[in-house]
Amino acid sequence: MLTTEARQKILADNEAAAGELRQRFAAAGTLVVDLISGPGSGKTSLLEETARRMSRELRLGCVVGDIATERDARRLAAAGLRARQIMTGGACHLDARVVRDAVDAERFGELDILFIENVGNLVCPASYALGEDFKIVLLSVTEGQDKPLKYPGIFSRACAAVITKIDLLPYVRFDLEQARGEIRLLRPDAQIVLTSVTTGEGIESWCDLLRGALERKRRPALVP
Amino acid sequence: MLTTEARQKILADNEAAAGELRQRFAAAGTLVVDLISGPGSGKTSLLEETARRMSRELRLGCVVGDIATERDARRLAAAGLRARQIMTGGACHLDARVVRDAVDAERFGELDILFIENVGNLVCPASYALGEDFKIVLLSVTEGQDKPLKYPGIFSRACAAVITKIDLLPYVRFDLEQARGEIRLLRPDAQIVLTSVTTGEGIESWCDLLRGALERKRRPALVP
Repeated sequence: MLTTEARQKILADNEAAAGELRQRFAAAGTLVVDLISGPGSGKTSLLEETARRMSRELRLGCVVGDIATERDARRLAAAGLRARQIMTGGACHLDARVVRDAVDAERFGELDILFIENVGNLVCPASYALGEDFKIVLLSVTEGQDKPLKYPGIFSRACAAVITKIDLLPYVRFDLEQARGEIRLLRPDAQIVLTSVTTGEGIESWCDLLRGALERKRRPALVP
Repeated sequence: MLTTEARQKILADNEAAAGELRQRFAAAGTLVVDLISGPGSGKTSLLEETARRMSRELRLGCVVGDIATERDARRLAAAGLRARQIMTGGACHLDARVVRDAVDAERFGELDILFIENVGNLVCPASYALGEDFKIVLLSVTEGQDKPLKYPGIFSRACAAVITKIDLLPYVRFDLEQARGEIRLLRPDAQIVLTSVTTGEGIESWCDLLRGALERKRRPALVP
């Protein structure tokens, strides 16, 4: 097991690199969104649908992390998103340095929104700042309503939870009220968006959440 | 990022503790099975169903790891399985020391089969030996057929892959042949078992796999 000191050192080094990224994105006016979920919850599918709806109005890009394969970047590029794959080669999460290298390599300086699709893992990515404006957690209804309290790290850090695959609700046991209650227990101000890329339900609400966040980032409130 | 040396030291320490556990389980004739999957793939549901079918013929126990909550241990106990919850408090995988402590605390000395339900994470648990006879990976059809090559560590280490929730096949896009092909590419001798705890399909094949492994463990081949 990693010692507490070693872990703190790693996180402090990462925080420093994330701080630099945050400054760069602030100067460029780029909204940065870190998407986190377990494997197969639908991160790539949500981003494909987001790109189809928003890529004509906004300059979108994505850095996508996987242990191996470039599949997700290829899917996203086919949906019209500028995408850069990071193959972590075993690492269970992205860190700020690999994101910075990918942003530099892809010349992602002029985007409206940069998505970071993290490695499919509900645990480790929660602890790593990547210069993002906020983290989003995805939970598919097939995974069960008990996940928020079992993975409190990410559900308390994410400002919004996207419940995916709601078209499958008739076929699985998923207690939506319990899921909502657990998310709000961990993060009372969490936005909760119900989506299905199969039926299209909720996708516009998700896009509106992004549009609103981008607008707020670019027009700081004049009145406190 | 953790240095290679630090990572190797952690794994070597773990391997030493796992070796001790392996000797203890060999002396006791206990078959030990480490179950690994992403969150919500159905590890607990499969073990509940396994307990219902096998707990009259065999002495079964389970050590179950989660970041937080004792939910899974309570579910397993209700299904008739002696279960000990390990709350990792943030750690993304079980290691051999915490398993040893749980086995000692629960006096799991006299079991036929000890299941280890790992933390819901397809990445990190793959690298940690826990004194098990083998690792099993679970993949639900709702997660998509592309996961084996994206998570090659666990799919190459697991001697069997259990494809879960096959009752949902009519409602999702899941290419079973691609999944099979990718699993076999990583692990040509992998057993692949298709299951649904909702319909009961495949559960007896899974139980037979366990019965066969226990029998082989207890009756070493006389002929090489």
